[in-house]
Amino acid sequence: MVNIAVLGYGTVGSGVVEVIRTNPDSINKKAGQEINVKYVLDLRDFPGDPVEKILVHDFDVILNDPDVKIVVEVMGGVEPAYTFVKKSLLAGKSVCTSNKELVAKHGPELLEIARTKELNFLFEASVGGGIPIIRPLNSSLTADEILEITGILNGTTNYILSKMSADGQEFDAALKKAQELGYAERNPEADVEGYDACRKIAILSSLAFGDHVDFEEIYTEGISKITAVDIAYAKKMNYAVKLLASSKREEDQYYAMVAPFLVPPTHPLFAVNDVFNAIFVKGNVLGDVMFYGSGAGKLPTASAVVSDVVDATKHLHRNIMSFWSSKKLGLTKVDKATRRFFVRIADASAGDPAKEPAGLAKVKAVFGEGELVRADGVTGEFGFVTQAMTEEAFHEKCGQIDGFLGRIRLL
Amino acid sequence: MVNIAVLGYGTVGSGVVEVIRTNPDSINKKAGQEINVKYVLDLRDFPGDPVEKILVHDFDVILNDPDVKIVVEVMGGVEPAYTFVKKSLLAGKSVCTSNKELVAKHGPELLEIARTKELNFLFEASVGGGIPIIRPLNSSLTADEILEITGILNGTTNYILSKMSADGQEFDAALKKAQELGYAERNPEADVEGYDACRKIAILSSLAFGDHVDFEEIYTEGISKITAVDIAYAKKMNYAVKLLASSKREEDQYYAMVAPFLVPPTHPLFAVNDVFNAIFVKGNVLGDVMFYGSGAGKLPTASAVVSDVVDATKHLHRNIMSFWSSKKLGLTKVDKATRRFFVRIADASAGDPAKEPAGLAKVKAVFGEGELVRADGVTGEFGFVTQAMTEEAFHEKCGQIDGFLGRIRLL
Repeated sequence: MVNIAVLGYGTVGSGVVEVIRTNPDSINKKAGQEINVKYVLDLRDFPGDPVEKILVHDFDVILNDPDVKIVVEVMGGVEPAYTFVKKSLLAGKSVCTSNKELVAKHGPELLEIARTKELNFLFEASVGGGIPIIRPLNSSLTADEILEITGILNGTTNYILSKMSADGQEFDAALKKAQELGYAERNPEADVEGYDACRKIAILSSLAFGDHVDFEEIYTEGISKITAVDIAYAKKMNYAVKLLASSKREEDQYYAMVAPFLVPPTHPLFAVNDVFNAIFVKGNVLGDVMFYGSGAGKLPTASAVVSDVVDATKHLHRNIMSFWSSKKLGLTKVDKATRRFFVRIADASAGDPAKEPAGLAKVKAVFGEGELVRADGVTGEFGFVTQAMTEEAFHEKCGQIDGFLGRIRLL
Repeated sequence: MVNIAVLGYGTVGSGVVEVIRTNPDSINKKAGQEINVKYVLDLRDFPGDPVEKILVHDFDVILNDPDVKIVVEVMGGVEPAYTFVKKSLLAGKSVCTSNKELVAKHGPELLEIARTKELNFLFEASVGGGIPIIRPLNSSLTADEILEITGILNGTTNYILSKMSADGQEFDAALKKAQELGYAERNPEADVEGYDACRKIAILSSLAFGDHVDFEEIYTEGISKITAVDIAYAKKMNYAVKLLASSKREEDQYYAMVAPFLVPPTHPLFAVNDVFNAIFVKGNVLGDVMFYGSGAGKLPTASAVVSDVVDATKHLHRNIMSFWSSKKLGLTKVDKATRRFFVRIADASAGDPAKEPAGLAKVKAVFGEGELVRADGVTGEFGFVTQAMTEEAFHEKCGQIDGFLGRIRLL
């Protein structure tokens, strides 16, 4: 029997206890021994709850109990999670966490402690909820140099964009609906501004490239400026607007960014809708693979945490995670990345679909050849898809355009 | 340094050598030591080829060399692969294979030998080519009871069906195109009749459910009877026809089958086209996940084989695969499975889209309420989607219908 302690009895923590109690036979068989939840740490009391008798309020009870071999940290946030996790590892306990802030900020240090102490610091649930992605990157895609990881890593924004596309709603209305359904928090900033996706792509990129990608250096743009008119253009082009978190390696250059993109129907991420997440990975010999599933939710996330607990139990004193070095990976500025752009240009003459807008010639003079796009029911402006150019060149050209209304990148 | 031997220098075997030579630094780092291809076994000579000097024609050279710790079997077919693999394991060498026939037929025995000898018998490449699915089932989805695995596991048939859908071609023309492109063999029976997918779902089901699913007991139906008219109906309904290999657990009943299905646009398998494969898995706590990628091809398959070699190197004397018992899993007859069916009924009166076909009332009298479907340009018949019923009940009712032309199951 292996004793574990669960830090935090919120959504994920109660899910972890529920999963272990739902599938004890198969979980214990796969772990090779019985997994027993000895303690649950929470500041609150839960009278009448099944964990009432194993609830503790003081972390030191767990830290000082040598019977506890695995600590499950599902509190979220950097502190006190970081202090608890570090102390646990130093005390000889493996740690499984769902905490993306913790992993993005302190991953290399905690992995290094686990490695030197022949323990494990596992974090499958920190990215993509229930989707297996950390373990496949660590153990399955080992024959490849990873060239690209591009993910829909935030279910809240994917729901909002799917809703805007399906119902023609504006951002605010779709956000309100997401909040009503519990998909978005009352303060939705971390999701809609891309900060959540940013931490997740930092973790995936660090694992894929082996050096530390600092999330604070990743160019991050959210979806709060996407409008129903943008979506109307996207539909006309048969593209989908998705918030993508992406990192790429091109020769010795590494790029990482989070931003809304127009995704073509030929790309496997195109069909990923609602609260689902998906992670597309390109390897230099494997080609393209994609992992798809529920990116959040109590039980899917808890399933990923418990799969880490099973792995930690199977490898109690044997380190199994690749570690990423604490050496910072230098990211090339997004300015240097090359892609096509969709732009919207105000033009009073653009109302008549039979006539070419008056401003198109000027736009072509600046951007070169490209594709005119007109959305149904949209007047007073037109859309235009440029050829591929650097972000830097694009921004310079935008300054020469009168009536520039906005742009979305093309995948 | 760990020495390996590659049995078979065909497409996959030469790919394995190429992958190891393409990414030596990252592969050796992940394996923890250098991986050296000491021998390649093939009956043929390859003058001028880089492997010329390490080529052997006699398996005993490999078997009797104690320096060879890992044998890579990529010959295909049951014999002599089975004899070579068994001898290798008994001689203390781990084995990595891409051979689905071998794994489906002898998996439990070879896994058991590997387990008792503290070795590994790994077969990531036997299902889904480069897509990680065996290792995720073994190591990632460990918190769940698996309720369903449904896959597009054969790229040839998926290409043919995609081509029929995109171009309105008949089966024979699409098959010919697939043969021209090298996606289908000259004798395409194993692919188009579903035998390849059958072996793959037997492997996945055995791993997911823990007991041995005998591929010979899986109901298997291919795509050679699918016509352009079937596809026209499917398009009208906005469904896609896909060859699915599926197994399900419902309480203590297990079902497995391979057959063409109509897949709705809301299902993640709907958008999996051309030669791509995908495997959809439902867990009792995880919910739905899907793994997508290249299901075949030299380098993707070789990438999966080499990822097994890396894992075998990391765990030279430590068994890491769950084994499935040799106890046969009793499958419930497909007759008892419940689903909706699409049927085509000959009806001379069905030419006028404004009028209800004369035969519809009789069809409803037999099947109950359901949905009339008419495809563009198709006359002399109509389509009908039944309500859910058992296969048994469906077949009994079909006997009561005059002019029954065919049926496709609905997912």
